[in-house]
Amino acid sequence: MTIPSAPFPATRAAAAASGPTVAIDIGGTKIAGALVHPDGTMSATTRRPTPRGADADGVMAAVAEVVADLSESPLWASAVRCGIGSAGPVDTSRGTVSPVNIGAWREFPVQERVVAELAAHGADLPTVLAGDGVAMTAAEHWLGAARGHANALCMVVSTGVGGGLILNSRLHPGPTGNAGHIGHMSVAFDGEPCACGGHGCVESIASGTAIARWALDQGWTPSDTAGGAAGVNGAGGAGGGRDATAAGVAAAAAEGDPIALAAFDRAGRALAAAIAATATLVETDIAVIGGGVAAAGDTLFGPIRSHLAAYATLSFAKDIQVVPAMLGTHAGLIGAAAAATMLLPSAPSSS
Amino acid sequence: MTIPSAPFPATRAAAAASGPTVAIDIGGTKIAGALVHPDGTMSATTRRPTPRGADADGVMAAVAEVVADLSESPLWASAVRCGIGSAGPVDTSRGTVSPVNIGAWREFPVQERVVAELAAHGADLPTVLAGDGVAMTAAEHWLGAARGHANALCMVVSTGVGGGLILNSRLHPGPTGNAGHIGHMSVAFDGEPCACGGHGCVESIASGTAIARWALDQGWTPSDTAGGAAGVNGAGGAGGGRDATAAGVAAAAAEGDPIALAAFDRAGRALAAAIAATATLVETDIAVIGGGVAAAGDTLFGPIRSHLAAYATLSFAKDIQVVPAMLGTHAGLIGAAAAATMLLPSAPSSS
Repeated sequence: MTIPSAPFPATRAAAAASGPTVAIDIGGTKIAGALVHPDGTMSATTRRPTPRGADADGVMAAVAEVVADLSESPLWASAVRCGIGSAGPVDTSRGTVSPVNIGAWREFPVQERVVAELAAHGADLPTVLAGDGVAMTAAEHWLGAARGHANALCMVVSTGVGGGLILNSRLHPGPTGNAGHIGHMSVAFDGEPCACGGHGCVESIASGTAIARWALDQGWTPSDTAGGAAGVNGAGGAGGGRDATAAGVAAAAAEGDPIALAAFDRAGRALAAAIAATATLVETDIAVIGGGVAAAGDTLFGPIRSHLAAYATLSFAKDIQVVPAMLGTHAGLIGAAAAATMLLPSAPSSS
Repeated sequence: MTIPSAPFPATRAAAAASGPTVAIDIGGTKIAGALVHPDGTMSATTRRPTPRGADADGVMAAVAEVVADLSESPLWASAVRCGIGSAGPVDTSRGTVSPVNIGAWREFPVQERVVAELAAHGADLPTVLAGDGVAMTAAEHWLGAARGHANALCMVVSTGVGGGLILNSRLHPGPTGNAGHIGHMSVAFDGEPCACGGHGCVESIASGTAIARWALDQGWTPSDTAGGAAGVNGAGGAGGGRDATAAGVAAAAAEGDPIALAAFDRAGRALAAAIAATATLVETDIAVIGGGVAAAGDTLFGPIRSHLAAYATLSFAKDIQVVPAMLGTHAGLIGAAAAATMLLPSAPSSS
């Protein structure tokens, strides 16, 4: 991925140190690594599957292999910092992670373990840990849809709902790295319980999981989509076997299925309320949305935009834009590097 | 009001300039002024009623009289900056205000008009405009209940609901000075319309006005409070003529009236949801609540605290404290001075 001109954080970092950033992206299915350069290009990309059924050290072994792969790059010696992005929750004040989707890691000290692996390969690098929502936000602010925005909310709407904030042109991770957790803001104080113990959380209404569950509860079935319309025509399901997932609901919505459309409308209203609440609370002027459910395009963005006016009413909030994320596959690695660049002092004390 | 040790913003400012701050507090009923000293004491306090039925210049004339009063202080020549706190909405990017409760001022350029009045009295001072929610927040962070907290939400629950944010030990007014507008966050995306055009806004559920309206709608009447209990006793109203206001509802709640208790419980739940949403979004660790409705004490704080656990569930949010504001009558003047001190560069370019 090449971007023509060097944007803000890279420019600032370049003044102090122009070498690459060691980027590590830890998720429930894979652990990826790359050297990310100041112009946003990547080299030495590598990955391992996240070990299943392994203990904490077993998962860490895969991270160590990623670091070892990266250390074989001829550019390794020129690296200036390391960024680790991880599924959350994280606690950046202690350098630990407890990813929901990596059960073997609970308060696992990933930052000190990665620093040790870097040192084992001769690299003494300032290292930053960021949650994946914060990392995605850093990526979109550096090279994506939030570029140039001093105050932005970036979100991932997928099986869960996560996010991060840019405030005053800086990443706002909060004291423990968890700020931007928009999925667990309540938009329905009288609402249904969420898995987190809360009530009316955005995630419990607008995640892909929630969209599919609500549609099923309302009588939508994956096999008779093309739904109401096709049913009326007596044509039955077109091909059958559609997924009982948000993607299946999106496909049905695109064909006019009224329950599927209502499911996305409801999710869009909840997201609009949360986006407006954020703009009202911290004066963000753009919301960037990525993740699997955002791939539904106008099926999701249409309802969000049409409902925004019902929640973003005040003069300083009403013009908020809602746009799709621009970075795809490599957002995690780009984000780990961007977060490290934005959060470390502009002149790192060690190389 | 004297505070023993000089706290953070005063300390920082004192290094650059130890003179007083000219503080002006503009509200719907009065316009107040004072010289606020680095130790938090005030002198030369003065005030005028906010003119009713006057045009824009007529209201400004009262502000000019306040400035003239202050200029007669022997300490006037030593003033180092000016802070203006105003009812909102404000637009600090343009120096204008459009207070809901001062109809004659719509996009009124109060900042440049105050600067001109200062100059007419020989004072060329760096001047900051802040909304009253942001000013109250600066005051509570300087000398009140948010002191020492790097990330705080401060709120006023009164006829309306307003607020402000401290993030990373700094005031976060946002680009136009309106950040912290928690009263118009939605906590009920399927909720009733709010006067602002939104739906389910905190203010439409938890303001004093909303509490009284809801209680009345549910059958509470000001004259038969001591309510359920007294009614059962056949004693009738004690004294009669209780206000159909939140204060009247609070008095009835204190006597066990079930509708009054339910009204505060509902307001407390909405406030708990909004406080938790803020903690989840930006990692605030304390919520400070002032204003007339907060004077109900445990009648309001009890429900908020008991409902917090139903909304603030994540590890980094669940320990948030909710406490009463500490600054009373003079919070507006202290806040105008504190906001100016926090928002101006630490070494003002002019004296």
